[in-house]
Amino acid sequence: RINPDRLWDSIHEMAEIGPGVAGGNNRQTLTDEDGEGRALFKRWCEAAGLEMGLDKMGTMFARREGTDPDALPVYVGSHLDTQPTGGRYDGVLGVLGGLEVIRTLNDLGIKTKHPIVVTNWTNEEGTRFAPAMLASGVFAGQHELDWAYARQDAKGKTFGDELKRIGWLGEEEVGARKMHAFFELHIEQGPILEAEGKDIGVVTHGQGLWWLQVTLTGKDSHTGSTPMPMRKNAGLGMARITELVHEIAMSHQPAAVGAIGHCDVYPNSRNVIPGKVVFTIDFRSPDQRTLDAMKARLEAEAPKIAEELGLGIEIEAVGHFDPVTFDENCVKAVREAAERLGYSHRDIVSGAGHDACWINRVAPTAMVMCPCVDGLSHNEAEEISKEWAAAGADVLFHAVVETAGI
Amino acid sequence: RINPDRLWDSIHEMAEIGPGVAGGNNRQTLTDEDGEGRALFKRWCEAAGLEMGLDKMGTMFARREGTDPDALPVYVGSHLDTQPTGGRYDGVLGVLGGLEVIRTLNDLGIKTKHPIVVTNWTNEEGTRFAPAMLASGVFAGQHELDWAYARQDAKGKTFGDELKRIGWLGEEEVGARKMHAFFELHIEQGPILEAEGKDIGVVTHGQGLWWLQVTLTGKDSHTGSTPMPMRKNAGLGMARITELVHEIAMSHQPAAVGAIGHCDVYPNSRNVIPGKVVFTIDFRSPDQRTLDAMKARLEAEAPKIAEELGLGIEIEAVGHFDPVTFDENCVKAVREAAERLGYSHRDIVSGAGHDACWINRVAPTAMVMCPCVDGLSHNEAEEISKEWAAAGADVLFHAVVETAGI
Ligand SMILES: NC(=O)NCCC(=O)O
Ligand SMILES: NC(=O)NCCC(=O)O
Repeated sequence: RINPDRLWDSIHEMAEIGPGVAGGNNRQTLTDEDGEGRALFKRWCEAAGLEMGLDKMGTMFARREGTDPDALPVYVGSHLDTQPTGGRYDGVLGVLGGLEVIRTLNDLGIKTKHPIVVTNWTNEEGTRFAPAMLASGVFAGQHELDWAYARQDAKGKTFGDELKRIGWLGEEEVGARKMHAFFELHIEQGPILEAEGKDIGVVTHGQGLWWLQVTLTGKDSHTGSTPMPMRKNAGLGMARITELVHEIAMSHQPAAVGAIGHCDVYPNSRNVIPGKVVFTIDFRSPDQRTLDAMKARLEAEAPKIAEELGLGIEIEAVGHFDPVTFDENCVKAVREAAERLGYSHRDIVSGAGHDACWINRVAPTAMVMCPCVDGLSHNEAEEISKEWAAAGADVLFHAVVETAGI
Repeated sequence: RINPDRLWDSIHEMAEIGPGVAGGNNRQTLTDEDGEGRALFKRWCEAAGLEMGLDKMGTMFARREGTDPDALPVYVGSHLDTQPTGGRYDGVLGVLGGLEVIRTLNDLGIKTKHPIVVTNWTNEEGTRFAPAMLASGVFAGQHELDWAYARQDAKGKTFGDELKRIGWLGEEEVGARKMHAFFELHIEQGPILEAEGKDIGVVTHGQGLWWLQVTLTGKDSHTGSTPMPMRKNAGLGMARITELVHEIAMSHQPAAVGAIGHCDVYPNSRNVIPGKVVFTIDFRSPDQRTLDAMKARLEAEAPKIAEELGLGIEIEAVGHFDPVTFDENCVKAVREAAERLGYSHRDIVSGAGHDACWINRVAPTAMVMCPCVDGLSHNEAEEISKEWAAAGADVLFHAVVETAGI
């Protein structure tokens, strides 16, 4: 079994870097704080005897050698970047859970046949630079490297420039590594495990996603002196599309969600009718047909809303992945580990996207989930117990070691 | 008659300070650019032989002496601050039109009985610090000075600190001056004069206004893994209230307008359900009962929308003025000046708020309006012709000189 206190202490030491305003974290990707978090992780890895690799997307790969020189490594990890008002566990548990696997192997003096590599994927969150899971997406051949470098944040800074600026641009080709398997431990970020009193979620599938960035163009004009019939109010258009997104998601219950989390209003002045709004729709479903039907309905109906209001509309897909079915053998390894260790468990579909969703395309992959309080995530109040973290890391340890062989 | 070229050149020289991104201006109140604009205006006033006064709200008063030592001055002016993406004429025409009155009197060697004071009121726009017409509101006894100083911009900077920082905090008590009359020249900011081919609007009334700042509090959580029934989506609440505002305004046509120009979404991340939104509703009507009915309906129905979505709601009035009826004699002076000069004119209600609306409470006041292209204002593309500006300034000149006496 892993060492629960050591894991817990490391998580909370990491949380001191990029503290939020309400007990959580703001360690967004490619900020100075992200750089500090990486440096701490590197020190820990080196102390555990691992050799650090770094690729051109800034993804970190900390390697523990195996006994068979020809065996491909088993990879384990997640991400250290956070939301602007994120929790302490989202991503961090998976990276430091991976490190805890190594530390436990070191404690026990166990050599595995396959090497084990603990990974910190760059820009999983997708807040600062869309899309989410950017580095794992390039790794899995879903995006071009140059396209990823050109992604811009709200201030127009590019991913490529910022990666260089914080000093974590590596030389290794992205995706050059071959994997025997990949395992990711993550908090559920939803309410099911806690509600059912289960220790472990065996993740069999992941929801698919469409991120649609909508730009509505009206005409900024005076809120007082512009008669109602002469207005081209882009804010009213956004309101109607927000309602449409909600309606679309509600028409596919329970297997769909939809919301708008990001919006920018121009010029954002109390007495100016918004002349432009830019916002991002997030649609998800575990079912491919539902997912695509939601997008299609939005693309059919939103332009009508715009037209009625005299607005221009552009819809751009800025993030997408299909629903995922994880690898049967890896899933079995997770389920059997939970079983063997005596943890209560259930199969579960991941509501969130994860690096594992992309890596599943290029390597046998599975995920371990542990509960989180009230299903709350992407919130500074995100919380888990030490016992939940320990159970997740235990199952991760057993699934990884089983797959890596002794 | 005034000198159209001189007026036009001054307007466009002022527009070089705080240029916008599309031909207009960003010279928001109490920014460095506002300071530069003030300095230029001061140089011009001094060159015209005026003596500059400055009050504790930073309002500038440039005085030309009259022949009667006991006569109260006739005031004339408007504001030099702009919207973040504002035009070149909104406010500026009224201040520099006032200066042109003085320059023309100097050219003609005319002495008036009453002194004439050209005024630049601080923070008319209300974008950076709500409410609009802040300095004229303090002058008219509508707000306390300390309350005005405590107004904050989006970054938490206060009006008082920023006024000191840019070096335009005066020593004169606000509202100490007594006025014989006040005249404000302004572009219409609406479509009526241009559509009817009128040179001059004789402003008889002004719309009243309510600015209601609404804060909706939900719960930030993951857009992917939070089931629809568990969401507390503050963004959806804002969408529904946006539609409600529109409906309320549409139910009182043609004598009402309503929109939301300003909104801030937290944490504003693509994959976080908005946990908080803050936005400002702008309701206006020339009819007191309609104005108050709009506010009352909003206050009755918005909380129901919030409750249905499990959101907390706070509604705060951050700006208000009642509909205005301008002074009969001053209005007559404007109408007769237009008539005498042979300009086509009509009586008109101001759709926007103006410093004149507050000053009307403490002194006989009227306004002169000139058309603007497509009724467009609060937009960098705001446009007027040199002839329109000249006609407005001519009428202003005659109304002011008539009132000030020779
Ligand atoms: N796990 C997680 O929150 N990932 C961010 C990408 C997403 O929005 O699902
Ligand atoms: N004239 C003008 O645009 N004033 C700003 C205050 C308002 O919103 O009416």
